[in-house]
Amino acid sequence: MEKKIYTPGILQYIPFFYVIWSDDLVSASEVNIVEKAIDGDHTLSDTEKVLLHSWLQVKNPPKNEEFKNWKQTISNSGTKLIEGETYPLTTFSQKVVCQYHETYPLNEQLKSIEVNLGIQPNHYNHLFEVEVEHSISAQTYDANEIAKILKGSHAPVIDAFQEFLLDPIFNWGIHRNKEDFRHVVLEQLKVLAQKGYGAMAYPAAYGGTGDMEGYATIFENLMYVDGSLTIKFGVQFGLFGGSIQKLGTKIHHDTYLTAAGQAKLLGCFAMTETGHGSNVRGIKTTATYDKKTDSIIIHTPGKNDNKEYIGNALHSKMASVFAQLIVNGKNEGVHAVLVPLRNKNHELLPGITVEDNGYKLGLNGVDNGKIWFNQVKVPRVNLLNKYGSIKEDGTYYSDIKNPNKRFFTMLGTLVGGRICVARAGLGGAKMALAIAIKHALKRRQFNDNIKIQEDLLMDYPSHQLRLTPLVASAYVYHATLDKMMEVYCDESQPDKRKVETQVAGLKSIITWYANNTIQECREACGGKGYLLENRIADLKGDVDIFTTFEGDNNVLLQLAAKGVLSDFKSEFNSAGFSSVLKLLSQQISDKLAMVNPLYSNKVDKEHLYNPKFHKHAFDYRTRRLTYTLAMRIRDYIKKGVPSYQAFLKVQTHLLALGKAYSVELAYNTYIEFTETIEDTKNRELFQKLGTLYALYEIRQDASWYLEQGYIGGTKSKAIRQRVERLCTELRPHIGVLVDGFGIPGHCITAPIAH
Amino acid sequence: MEKKIYTPGILQYIPFFYVIWSDDLVSASEVNIVEKAIDGDHTLSDTEKVLLHSWLQVKNPPKNEEFKNWKQTISNSGTKLIEGETYPLTTFSQKVVCQYHETYPLNEQLKSIEVNLGIQPNHYNHLFEVEVEHSISAQTYDANEIAKILKGSHAPVIDAFQEFLLDPIFNWGIHRNKEDFRHVVLEQLKVLAQKGYGAMAYPAAYGGTGDMEGYATIFENLMYVDGSLTIKFGVQFGLFGGSIQKLGTKIHHDTYLTAAGQAKLLGCFAMTETGHGSNVRGIKTTATYDKKTDSIIIHTPGKNDNKEYIGNALHSKMASVFAQLIVNGKNEGVHAVLVPLRNKNHELLPGITVEDNGYKLGLNGVDNGKIWFNQVKVPRVNLLNKYGSIKEDGTYYSDIKNPNKRFFTMLGTLVGGRICVARAGLGGAKMALAIAIKHALKRRQFNDNIKIQEDLLMDYPSHQLRLTPLVASAYVYHATLDKMMEVYCDESQPDKRKVETQVAGLKSIITWYANNTIQECREACGGKGYLLENRIADLKGDVDIFTTFEGDNNVLLQLAAKGVLSDFKSEFNSAGFSSVLKLLSQQISDKLAMVNPLYSNKVDKEHLYNPKFHKHAFDYRTRRLTYTLAMRIRDYIKKGVPSYQAFLKVQTHLLALGKAYSVELAYNTYIEFTETIEDTKNRELFQKLGTLYALYEIRQDASWYLEQGYIGGTKSKAIRQRVERLCTELRPHIGVLVDGFGIPGHCITAPIAH
Repeated sequence: MEKKIYTPGILQYIPFFYVIWSDDLVSASEVNIVEKAIDGDHTLSDTEKVLLHSWLQVKNPPKNEEFKNWKQTISNSGTKLIEGETYPLTTFSQKVVCQYHETYPLNEQLKSIEVNLGIQPNHYNHLFEVEVEHSISAQTYDANEIAKILKGSHAPVIDAFQEFLLDPIFNWGIHRNKEDFRHVVLEQLKVLAQKGYGAMAYPAAYGGTGDMEGYATIFENLMYVDGSLTIKFGVQFGLFGGSIQKLGTKIHHDTYLTAAGQAKLLGCFAMTETGHGSNVRGIKTTATYDKKTDSIIIHTPGKNDNKEYIGNALHSKMASVFAQLIVNGKNEGVHAVLVPLRNKNHELLPGITVEDNGYKLGLNGVDNGKIWFNQVKVPRVNLLNKYGSIKEDGTYYSDIKNPNKRFFTMLGTLVGGRICVARAGLGGAKMALAIAIKHALKRRQFNDNIKIQEDLLMDYPSHQLRLTPLVASAYVYHATLDKMMEVYCDESQPDKRKVETQVAGLKSIITWYANNTIQECREACGGKGYLLENRIADLKGDVDIFTTFEGDNNVLLQLAAKGVLSDFKSEFNSAGFSSVLKLLSQQISDKLAMVNPLYSNKVDKEHLYNPKFHKHAFDYRTRRLTYTLAMRIRDYIKKGVPSYQAFLKVQTHLLALGKAYSVELAYNTYIEFTETIEDTKNRELFQKLGTLYALYEIRQDASWYLEQGYIGGTKSKAIRQRVERLCTELRPHIGVLVDGFGIPGHCITAPIAH
Repeated sequence: MEKKIYTPGILQYIPFFYVIWSDDLVSASEVNIVEKAIDGDHTLSDTEKVLLHSWLQVKNPPKNEEFKNWKQTISNSGTKLIEGETYPLTTFSQKVVCQYHETYPLNEQLKSIEVNLGIQPNHYNHLFEVEVEHSISAQTYDANEIAKILKGSHAPVIDAFQEFLLDPIFNWGIHRNKEDFRHVVLEQLKVLAQKGYGAMAYPAAYGGTGDMEGYATIFENLMYVDGSLTIKFGVQFGLFGGSIQKLGTKIHHDTYLTAAGQAKLLGCFAMTETGHGSNVRGIKTTATYDKKTDSIIIHTPGKNDNKEYIGNALHSKMASVFAQLIVNGKNEGVHAVLVPLRNKNHELLPGITVEDNGYKLGLNGVDNGKIWFNQVKVPRVNLLNKYGSIKEDGTYYSDIKNPNKRFFTMLGTLVGGRICVARAGLGGAKMALAIAIKHALKRRQFNDNIKIQEDLLMDYPSHQLRLTPLVASAYVYHATLDKMMEVYCDESQPDKRKVETQVAGLKSIITWYANNTIQECREACGGKGYLLENRIADLKGDVDIFTTFEGDNNVLLQLAAKGVLSDFKSEFNSAGFSSVLKLLSQQISDKLAMVNPLYSNKVDKEHLYNPKFHKHAFDYRTRRLTYTLAMRIRDYIKKGVPSYQAFLKVQTHLLALGKAYSVELAYNTYIEFTETIEDTKNRELFQKLGTLYALYEIRQDASWYLEQGYIGGTKSKAIRQRVERLCTELRPHIGVLVDGFGIPGHCITAPIAH
């Protein structure tokens, strides 16, 4: 092969051309960036510009011989590639020129190509076969700034709490025996209560600050300490205390709330029953008012009607028991009643039976148990009577006449717990990602070519692809859950039905996301991820059940979908249905008109990265699924198919709609959030994460979009390539992105992360 | 509404028409079945036939008014639906007629519709709003017959083994403390060894029967007892004993094999190192021949070069240590050397350090540890020298001159272990499915309509869809792994390279399948699935690591893909590559010609259920991915991109090919297997499972098929509907299908399964 000597002007472009052409992605818009740079480059002569342009014809790419010349020229220069430079490729190019010619300045046009094409060292660091000085992370972004953005207005609460977590009682350890573990967790709980964290969401009169949003951030942070502690904390203060706060009235608050918040009165939340997992309305426990003694009798009718999986059941002195309230022979629906379980000596009171649920896959520091009540008598005042009470004359009274509405109002007050579970799941996912990625930025993996240094695990495309979209999702879900809690806590908007629907869907997709993420992290760490000391195994066991408790995900998704169907306006019924259908039919036809072949095959970067495209795609999916679902149900109902059977037939369709709706909601909420970020550099980073989330999600459901003709085959492939590309582009910042989660360093005890 | 009275001839068809039209699936081929039945029905008058035909126009369906008449007629008849009948709908129809008219015979034509359309009671049991006598399972198939087919020629071995497992020492229990747990497992291991099961795969001279295939079935069955026992068994007899058997020569066999098989000599298999997970060739431990003392010195050079996750490390007296063999200063590559670890009193020998790996996510009954060697001297004879030896004169000798080939030959002898791991994963999946499905056939779930009896969990479409394809996959993978072991053990075919490639891919997809299945079963059982007593939690923790050990799945898939690329002929190299490429290019263009728009939109049942379609779809995918992959690599190489970088760039493509290849292999192997089933009824059931597997897998990758234009949107939707339909059709047999796995009843201790 003849050795070709290029002019300095040409030579400085050669490493760029070699990188661009050796890659798969040379789209029109990208060629455009390079062309503009060449045109604006005053260091080039006209002849040089012509030559460079001639090497940019997508339809007539440079010959292989030319490539080999380029490569040889670069390799022979013996230039060292330093990944840590601000513009590593531009600097490298300049140095190559200097090897063949005299000193040559850094070229601003090349810098612009490097930035605008998002070329990263891991694109090309093996390409030239030169010595490489590796750099694990770029210094472009500051993890503290990012963490600050995520903390938002809760920063003071979070910072103080993380400081407090330095107390050695929160040190992580392995506790295999459940009694030992439960003891440790109980002690930790008491310390949290003493410091006032338990009562945080309660009014000031009962030791709190009324800060439910702050409480949710604390809850997520507790996951960095231990999953069992998190759930125990949620049961005691959120569910037991929360039921007193939200379903009780002043007398209950005055009697119990302060003690509950201080963990001096331990209690449990006895809702779920063995035979009736997600069907609260169908629970069998009865609370029968006995006028003679002016008391309420709590009773478990059948062997399988016991309360089940009740957290804190073994430590509690009292339970908030959900039961069918029967007054004067009439069932007034489900209500909560405070029932003492044990005396001062912690002996069970008469009529009460408690059984340990035994060992579980995770959360073995939480004392779950079963509870049976055998004709247990409590005073009338123990009824938590905010939404329904028994008057002194022994009659039932409620402001809410419709029993259905009453039931949903009561349940609605507990939606905050559902947001907290999703946040805890998210916390678990962040923790696993931080560990797996810190490990992947340290561990070098073998490759076939023994001449080259072993690569960092994080430099493998498959590793980038398996972890980076999960990091992006964590950012999206963080902002979304923050916003949901804000809406839920907004006193100016008392109707919570919309946010209930939204939370039902989000809790499902986020807890599933958390499980998938933790599993992916376990596998990404190989055998190391399997060892308890590295924390991922525990997270896996603990977070697993989040998909089931506080509402089974499949049930919740159907709830969300039904909420969409009824357009958040009224409960689903055949009267309101036809008008919804008409409305939907209108909207869908409007939208459908916009999807033409040009649109469904648009593959340029500007379009694919544009939030307008993502929003349109998500909106289209939700509407389309709603419309077709409504049409199917209508057809069944017109044929006289019983509505129960009709809903059974469309069950998988409902689940698809519930998911689609939730993803759209998360994306839109996140994009709104990013617009509030003042600093441009950071805002653009957050928006890039949003783009990755959107494209990844569209990709996950590509078969649906393709079936609908919403995207064509070419566009689908382009989206896949863009997802891979974005993962590569984010590679230098991935370390900063997981540090940006703001997990306290002392909580990341996993040896593989260090 | 006017009440319409139909003639008996018409009336008997009405329940069928109501079911058919209320459903979504009325394809041309299905209408055809009904039309043929009507034409052949001699009980009908011509007028009646005309009327019935008029109700079968897909483009002009019966009016809603007509539907309501049908429904009212059926409901008013007050007929009870008995699901347990052989032909429940035909019998129901006959009874409806009898309510309005006189006695009327069972109609053979209706029976044929019922069978050929695959109409199942759970399609319609709520539809008529009549009383239903539910039946949990149909009696069409016999679980024992099915189990017998799966056992095949290994039935005597399996039956005897399952009988033996009744020994109370194998009773399942919860062991939280690792020392206690390891002790229990060790005792169980010794009992297995005493009974001869440990030595099973060894020659008769050493206590065995040379039955490696039988050994694999035992291995799977051990998963029904406990995962830790399974892995401990595999380490002691398969890996440690197996390395002596396969890498050693007569002197090693005579000295150690009998004792190893009897568990009198406990040993471990020290291959993996901390820093070099899946890179056996790159391990750092050295075995240096010292001519002066005629001995081999085993040494761990660096702190992180220790052996890692070594099972049996704490109980072993000896280790089979993989190390770089250095003879006269020359590195002869990786060889195995037997190294005593402890003396009779179980004290560590000088120079040896062992550290416990501590608690893990699962398998806590296995004593995994780390091992360091500090200049440990063993006699020359301890080299397992079947493929490479040090002669008396101190020179190295091997029959296999190429060090690469020698290395792969040694590793190849261990492929049996990889099949066993996949089988153990499969066993775990079967166990979880059996528990989840038995539970779903008992547990009734609430529904909104309180008038109707609560449905069985298994009657929900979403539940059918989440579990049934997983059952089908279990059948497919069972037959596939049986076949792989048969090929692997076939002495007449000494070249094992092809089966190695195949097993690499299958181990990956099957262990991933196992993990997904167990997770799905956990969630399908809700909170019950989370309790250890119900076994799924343990299976989850134990099987999890199967995706990583015996080769990380991502690494193995790339191995499989490279095997496909090189057409199983030679190691991948640039010389052989171009001819492979030419060959592939030829084949792909032949195949591509067959995909025309007609084919890509063919949606009739005959086509979609035809194995020819499935085979074609899988074959197309493998070839297409191979071709495009080869083209990409060729382009990179032509441009002078280093092959290491080129392979990095196509990494995700390689993974896709590895999966596609493995799925195709599994399906083809299974279909061949079904053709050997003599009994028609059972064969057809097995083939239906194959169809579900194929359509489910195509559906999983629908976005790819759509992108390629191999299937159109309509076909993609039709496949999705067929998957749901097949799940419903299999619903009455799902109980028998999991019983057909042949798991011993006494092993299914989960309370929820009873």
